[in-house]
Amino acid sequence: MAGGTGSRFWPVASSERPKQFIDIMGTGESMLQATFSRMERICPRENIIIVTSRDHCDTVREQISGLADYQVLGEPIRRGTAPCIAFAASVISRRCPDANIIVTPSDHAVFGLDRYVGDINQAIGIAEQNDWIITVGVQPTNPNTKYGYIQYSENPSLPTAKNLHQVVTFTEKPPIEMARKFIASGEFMWNAGILVWRLDILKEAFRQFLPNVSDLFFGSDGEPGLYAETVPDVVERAYSLCESISTDFGILEKAANVHVMEASFGWSDVETWDSLHETCDKDVSGNVVVGGNVFTYDVHNTVIHMPDDEHTVVVEGLDGYIVAADKQTLMICRRDHEEQIVKFRSDVAFDRIKSKKE
Amino acid sequence: MAGGTGSRFWPVASSERPKQFIDIMGTGESMLQATFSRMERICPRENIIIVTSRDHCDTVREQISGLADYQVLGEPIRRGTAPCIAFAASVISRRCPDANIIVTPSDHAVFGLDRYVGDINQAIGIAEQNDWIITVGVQPTNPNTKYGYIQYSENPSLPTAKNLHQVVTFTEKPPIEMARKFIASGEFMWNAGILVWRLDILKEAFRQFLPNVSDLFFGSDGEPGLYAETVPDVVERAYSLCESISTDFGILEKAANVHVMEASFGWSDVETWDSLHETCDKDVSGNVVVGGNVFTYDVHNTVIHMPDDEHTVVVEGLDGYIVAADKQTLMICRRDHEEQIVKFRSDVAFDRIKSKKE
Repeated sequence: MAGGTGSRFWPVASSERPKQFIDIMGTGESMLQATFSRMERICPRENIIIVTSRDHCDTVREQISGLADYQVLGEPIRRGTAPCIAFAASVISRRCPDANIIVTPSDHAVFGLDRYVGDINQAIGIAEQNDWIITVGVQPTNPNTKYGYIQYSENPSLPTAKNLHQVVTFTEKPPIEMARKFIASGEFMWNAGILVWRLDILKEAFRQFLPNVSDLFFGSDGEPGLYAETVPDVVERAYSLCESISTDFGILEKAANVHVMEASFGWSDVETWDSLHETCDKDVSGNVVVGGNVFTYDVHNTVIHMPDDEHTVVVEGLDGYIVAADKQTLMICRRDHEEQIVKFRSDVAFDRIKSKKE
Repeated sequence: MAGGTGSRFWPVASSERPKQFIDIMGTGESMLQATFSRMERICPRENIIIVTSRDHCDTVREQISGLADYQVLGEPIRRGTAPCIAFAASVISRRCPDANIIVTPSDHAVFGLDRYVGDINQAIGIAEQNDWIITVGVQPTNPNTKYGYIQYSENPSLPTAKNLHQVVTFTEKPPIEMARKFIASGEFMWNAGILVWRLDILKEAFRQFLPNVSDLFFGSDGEPGLYAETVPDVVERAYSLCESISTDFGILEKAANVHVMEASFGWSDVETWDSLHETCDKDVSGNVVVGGNVFTYDVHNTVIHMPDDEHTVVVEGLDGYIVAADKQTLMICRRDHEEQIVKFRSDVAFDRIKSKKE
């Protein structure tokens, strides 16, 4: 899934170039490229399908070369994760009816690649043997209000693996008091947004809980469903008729066969500059520096993110800031005020529209 | 005089583009252009001669169009203000032997153009009638240690004008305690670096106090001196043989006929970012914003200087900083730490040399 907008990383990320296409962590590859590399450790390259906005198909092909037509699916409009998954599954359905499917966001960070590969392979093994939807949970370290929480129960009827649990509830982005209670209870994990299930279980879940989406993408009596590879107009029609809904809300909160596997790998959704600071390696002064030719003097706990090594940045006397730039826009903002970035972006966009009119 | 390096305004000013060639105050013209415009109010355009580094003659001609050959003099090496003035005077000497000469830096700010024109015209009138060197003094408002100080005495034998005083001493950049005493005494003015004198008085001063410079530029027994307009090699030779010395130290501190006229106009040498902040108009939050498409949120007492309107800058939560950029380099620095800029510049320059070698 590479359809996100990553707007909180403005001005580095933007609707023209969302977070998954950017090397936001300074690893040397974009988050999409890193995700693709991870999946290549688990399945053949030709089995990987990327769903993105129609506008970004070219970006995907620039970043990952040699992809076949069926591997890059362009959504004409955003409709949430459920139609996105159904779109890819409809293509998989025609190529490999007995597929095991791993669904993963393309803009999250994973630490410990070997453990990641081990966990996912284990999940595939379990999904092959059980009619389950397997989600991946991460042990929470703080009452983060930007994450989804999975409540689980120890079920003695699940002998398969000690890191596998029955899911009781899903809660997206809880208020801070609730998140604190979740953590204290010991019954919750963060939702890493990864799903492992067989194609038949996936289709059955859509049929049962999202029949509208199911009919459009997988077909119904007399209707063939989507031939994404051959008839682009049909994709347009399906999306125009399709409801907008997330898999969490549309399926996972309702299905009874959802299980959660506790990840042994490190994970962050790197949703904001502040979480980038939490996630990345820091220098001795607690700074995260990505890109650019950066000189710091008496700078602490600050994120500095520059577009390329052509730009030199000298920063003196900042503590707890974000200094981020693309080629046209520079932003300096206190880390604990980063919620204002949405406003900055909108003010700048409005000003640019106004300037064009004048 | 347009030979300064203005390195304290790094990264906006640099040895490639010193302060006088930059619109550092956001007035719409460079400091050189502003100075040229001021002088055009006092004398015909063709009487204005600009001395700059040989490397910057083209920049001068780009910024002020239609100048004749003799109006832009390129110094092959820096030798201080005394040779610079002698160079221009040697050219004036051949074109207009009975000239009155105004010497002015090209990188200072003047406020109150009419008063400036009035003061300078008054000084010319006095210089025409008296064998004096007239300097211009500014009433100090604080014990600035970056300025030169002129001590003056009330001399009842000077009936010419009540704003004219005999000079007692010159002191360049005094220590802070000394500057405080100067201010407290009421006997000192800041030296605005402007000189008004007749050509014959100028040549006599050089002959008496800087005979080496005088011989090279104005000639001596059997030697014709400098023909700057026609024999460029002679300029090279003169500078290579010439001592390096300022007019303040070489002439003004020694001559007995130096007088100071108290300026009625506002003045600043705008030597540093912090003095730019003191000098310029500020918004309601005490910010000075020049260039760029700048958005500020909770920003106070800060200087923001961007290269052009193509660059958008969003700044949040800074108080008392300098945010300055040219097209390649961005600097963020506390205003009260601006003395470190020299170090930043040198660190960046060293790094660029190192990178080139690698």
